[in-house]
Amino acid sequence: MSADPLPALDQIDAAVLQQVLDGRWADIRSQVRETLRDPIFRPDMGLSMPDHRAIVSKQLAALAQTDGPKLLFPKDSGGLDEVGAAITSFETQAHADLSLLVKSGVQWGLFGGAVRHLGTKHHHDRYLADIMTVALPGCFAMTETGHGSDVQSIRTTATYDRETQEFVINTPDSSARKDYIGNAACDGRLAVVFAQLISGDNEPGVHAFLVPIRTEGGEPVPGVSIEDDGLKAGLNGVDNGRLHFDQVRVPRDALLNRFGDVAADGSYSSPIDSVNKRFFTMLGTLVQGRISISGAAISASKSALTIAVRYGDRRRQFSPPESDTEIPVLDYLAHQRKLLPALATTYALTFAQAELVAELHEAQSAATGDEARRKLETFAAALKATSTWHTSQTIQACREACGGAGYLAENQLAGLKADTDVFTTFEGDNTVLLQLVAKTLLTGYHAEFGELDTLATVRFVAEQVADIVIERIGARGIVRRVLDVLPGTGDDETNLLNRETQLALFAWREKHIIEGVARRMKKGFEADCDLFEVFNDAQDHLLLAARAHIDARILDSFTDAVDATTDPGVQAVLERVCDLHALATIERERAWFMEHNRLTATQSKVVTSTVNELCQQLRPYARLLVDAFAIPEELVVAPIAN
Amino acid sequence: MSADPLPALDQIDAAVLQQVLDGRWADIRSQVRETLRDPIFRPDMGLSMPDHRAIVSKQLAALAQTDGPKLLFPKDSGGLDEVGAAITSFETQAHADLSLLVKSGVQWGLFGGAVRHLGTKHHHDRYLADIMTVALPGCFAMTETGHGSDVQSIRTTATYDRETQEFVINTPDSSARKDYIGNAACDGRLAVVFAQLISGDNEPGVHAFLVPIRTEGGEPVPGVSIEDDGLKAGLNGVDNGRLHFDQVRVPRDALLNRFGDVAADGSYSSPIDSVNKRFFTMLGTLVQGRISISGAAISASKSALTIAVRYGDRRRQFSPPESDTEIPVLDYLAHQRKLLPALATTYALTFAQAELVAELHEAQSAATGDEARRKLETFAAALKATSTWHTSQTIQACREACGGAGYLAENQLAGLKADTDVFTTFEGDNTVLLQLVAKTLLTGYHAEFGELDTLATVRFVAEQVADIVIERIGARGIVRRVLDVLPGTGDDETNLLNRETQLALFAWREKHIIEGVARRMKKGFEADCDLFEVFNDAQDHLLLAARAHIDARILDSFTDAVDATTDPGVQAVLERVCDLHALATIERERAWFMEHNRLTATQSKVVTSTVNELCQQLRPYARLLVDAFAIPEELVVAPIAN
Repeated sequence: MSADPLPALDQIDAAVLQQVLDGRWADIRSQVRETLRDPIFRPDMGLSMPDHRAIVSKQLAALAQTDGPKLLFPKDSGGLDEVGAAITSFETQAHADLSLLVKSGVQWGLFGGAVRHLGTKHHHDRYLADIMTVALPGCFAMTETGHGSDVQSIRTTATYDRETQEFVINTPDSSARKDYIGNAACDGRLAVVFAQLISGDNEPGVHAFLVPIRTEGGEPVPGVSIEDDGLKAGLNGVDNGRLHFDQVRVPRDALLNRFGDVAADGSYSSPIDSVNKRFFTMLGTLVQGRISISGAAISASKSALTIAVRYGDRRRQFSPPESDTEIPVLDYLAHQRKLLPALATTYALTFAQAELVAELHEAQSAATGDEARRKLETFAAALKATSTWHTSQTIQACREACGGAGYLAENQLAGLKADTDVFTTFEGDNTVLLQLVAKTLLTGYHAEFGELDTLATVRFVAEQVADIVIERIGARGIVRRVLDVLPGTGDDETNLLNRETQLALFAWREKHIIEGVARRMKKGFEADCDLFEVFNDAQDHLLLAARAHIDARILDSFTDAVDATTDPGVQAVLERVCDLHALATIERERAWFMEHNRLTATQSKVVTSTVNELCQQLRPYARLLVDAFAIPEELVVAPIAN
Repeated sequence: MSADPLPALDQIDAAVLQQVLDGRWADIRSQVRETLRDPIFRPDMGLSMPDHRAIVSKQLAALAQTDGPKLLFPKDSGGLDEVGAAITSFETQAHADLSLLVKSGVQWGLFGGAVRHLGTKHHHDRYLADIMTVALPGCFAMTETGHGSDVQSIRTTATYDRETQEFVINTPDSSARKDYIGNAACDGRLAVVFAQLISGDNEPGVHAFLVPIRTEGGEPVPGVSIEDDGLKAGLNGVDNGRLHFDQVRVPRDALLNRFGDVAADGSYSSPIDSVNKRFFTMLGTLVQGRISISGAAISASKSALTIAVRYGDRRRQFSPPESDTEIPVLDYLAHQRKLLPALATTYALTFAQAELVAELHEAQSAATGDEARRKLETFAAALKATSTWHTSQTIQACREACGGAGYLAENQLAGLKADTDVFTTFEGDNTVLLQLVAKTLLTGYHAEFGELDTLATVRFVAEQVADIVIERIGARGIVRRVLDVLPGTGDDETNLLNRETQLALFAWREKHIIEGVARRMKKGFEADCDLFEVFNDAQDHLLLAARAHIDARILDSFTDAVDATTDPGVQAVLERVCDLHALATIERERAWFMEHNRLTATQSKVVTSTVNELCQQLRPYARLLVDAFAIPEELVVAPIAN
């Protein structure tokens, strides 16, 4: 199995390659790149925590002067309402200090996003303009020390007092304090606080309230205690903190009341009856946060790969036999293995992310149905988990590929690793997210993303009459092709460089695993087993289902992107990068394919040797491929990359 | 395939389990634990770099007051000459600040070790006492900016001046400056500088010289320029720096002349003729550094697992269906999967490390032959690579398993990750080390560790008449058993919980891969291919050979340790932990075993389900297993672990 030769390096139009990567909102990328060339954004790796926080606040103020924040907000509040452009801007901004990124994500994405999506017109009118300019710095106070993944069980309360028409916000004990809250330790003045709403006997679940936490002078508001979370592994330019509320009173209209309201007399009303469904609908409107983190993670892996590939291209070590010329380390297969499959997958994720952002944009621009919304949330969760783990591993590989130099702060990889490390567990813990994705797939997008608990999921699956339909596969028309092109046992001649074959393998794996998990649940339910045990015993199987789903989805995106490329030279290179991504994924999963008779032992070995060949074939294009990320040189300050 | 039930938790003697782990130098471990309870060693995660450096220097002075440093040095210099105890002490000390560990490793292990092992009596008499007390702080200046892995090609020169009987130490250009040198930025006064020796026309290769770099007042010596490497990802209590020598003159006896000397007239003499062999013999005497890092890495993974297991045991999230009691997160299979196989492998590595330390101890206590020494160096390199990668991955998993809490500096995991991150690339880059291990295995310990270049290796392999003998397997008598117990295709009933079967699988894999690489090299050589290409195309295969070798070796050690345990309860638990380690390794490598018809598809799936069962079976013992690491509570300050 050998890949066709590629056009010579100088035959490939680098500008076109960059265009393909830049995608639909290329103009915004260019604008943000220009903004970031300003010396105020120059990376500085030796700052103390207080200095770092101060500089990030200044940088945030500079960003507030641009059109960036306006993209996220509705036109009648002075915004531009271009969510696709907004996320693209955020992604590009991720090449600068990631503390700044997270700080701006807290202010505009989480805090502003909650006011926009959970609030109603009078909240918008009163707050959004000041949020955009950062005249009103704010927090998004959802997580508590005791409850992170299971947000529905948070224990902060908001009790309605009919006498005064106020809500009383209260932290019952220290495990219910709000924790890890960005902007809380120093700057935030108003917080969106998630709390259990109580009005008389009615307890309709978690709702969000606007609670002042600091005066304009910066002092904590009476009844609010604030602690600093202190030093973190990274992101030390963000002032994370803890909030504790001691019977803090806010007016009735502090409730962000789009999905549930309390009338003056204390009666509760909501357009959504089910507590569960209401909660997950509220959460769902915040999906842009997850999508933003996914994009930021991909950008961070691009920053790291840019540094490591440039260094590996030039750094020489050891001479070949009978020669005095030392070899660039990227010429070694083991070094290529560390960087090039990761580079190929970074391309793959870029195209999947572009599709996700476009879907979000369409969903917000037009009225979308429930099912489309659920699909978007599922895609977002699955891609966020995949992108952030990929980034964590890729930056680690880049650091090691740069040896001792990679360990020095000045070479930026240490900071990239430390800053992005938390991406795998914030905005939804990756493991929990993948489990939710699997549940959603099993139940055919039946309920709100995250809504079904274990019992409901197992029961739903058990009671399904028909087979599970893998919609994505059906929609793309792959199902009918699967059996034609799928390699079978004994068929050692199958060409795994054929894209149809790759797509079929990925799609078949997804279908087979999801069906397997469903059968397992059904069996456990019918045998009347303890449902927690049924579920827990299958947890790794569930996570595998989610991974198989997103793997297939990502390859679909990459394939579409390659097909849509019109420049033949660029298309040829992208074809090969896509092959490397696909084959490296098959290699990682080759045990599964052999276990399920979709790869023979011989084919499996061929997969490994083909990945090696693709690495060697793409090696001369490595620099071209990272240059196409077009990170402003002003931000690539690492001495080893210059 | 189901494991036997285990004795109840309260039937297991925790003290005996700790004894088994503490091993031969248990007394030293107890002493060091007592030392570390002193408040001076209390972890402090919020220090600035200058404060951190200052505190580490104070802590180092406190350690100098103990017998620890004496263990490393010969009796006639006032030492205790107990290298096994010294490494054990170092391992235990790794539960305190890892900056302190590395700083003490630089002072006593690298600097002191070089003076001891490369110097002769007058160097010992003059320096060792002051090195032990840190009256003379020093550096080990080997790595240059331009040459790290390929140390033989460093470009600093030491030119003998017959007139004055001096060596002139010179840095030709900035890529030849010494870099990443611990103790260089602030404290070091004398450095062991590795340089190309030039005496007239004679250029006998790299030798080590004692070069003063600072006066007693702390000023750089004239001709020496010192730069600070600045902030690093971690280990910021260590003052790494760069040294640049401008024609610095040192007397003739500054040459550490055990393996090569220059007479007053400039004539060179050495007990070893070959430049190559001499260089690698010199390096070999420094093997204790690698062994120490391996031990420190294992200790760091114990620190991380202690924190994450304690937290996972108590942290609750989500209730099972129809219940209000939330479930401890360690009850979830996915959480067990993150922590328990890593815990089992940490046990495995502990026993392998104990064997390695004992071998080093014997080698230094008695005159050992060349071959035994080479085997020791090979074992040390392979275990160092394995331990440090394991630690990096384990701490990462622990951090993620603790979510946002794991990201806060106060919970110690961030520091553990950042500090140990460089372990994978210093004291020998792991990839380079594994490649050297594979070369050594291929050439049957024929040459000094690291001595053979590509050409020599391929030629040696090609010219071998007989088959390669896998000595380790032969010595343990496993070879003859392999075919009896090895599972074959179609034999789905094989019990993979049988230790003999596991050992046979590991041993067969090692043998098969090494023979495969050898055949490949031979073929390339005979076909007159470009040898660099032959070698480079096989690089991943070579690395796999080294990994297969050390995997087998580690399982051997664990098996021996279990067999040597006399307490039945403790032995039963260790048996199961060993099963989990073995099965998790087979699971990781199951694609290879299927590719080589040693596992059927059915067996491969059984491996995965058995790992799950073992995780669930060992879950109640998780706390017992980490408690047996006996880390002083004074050092486990993470709030989430208390």
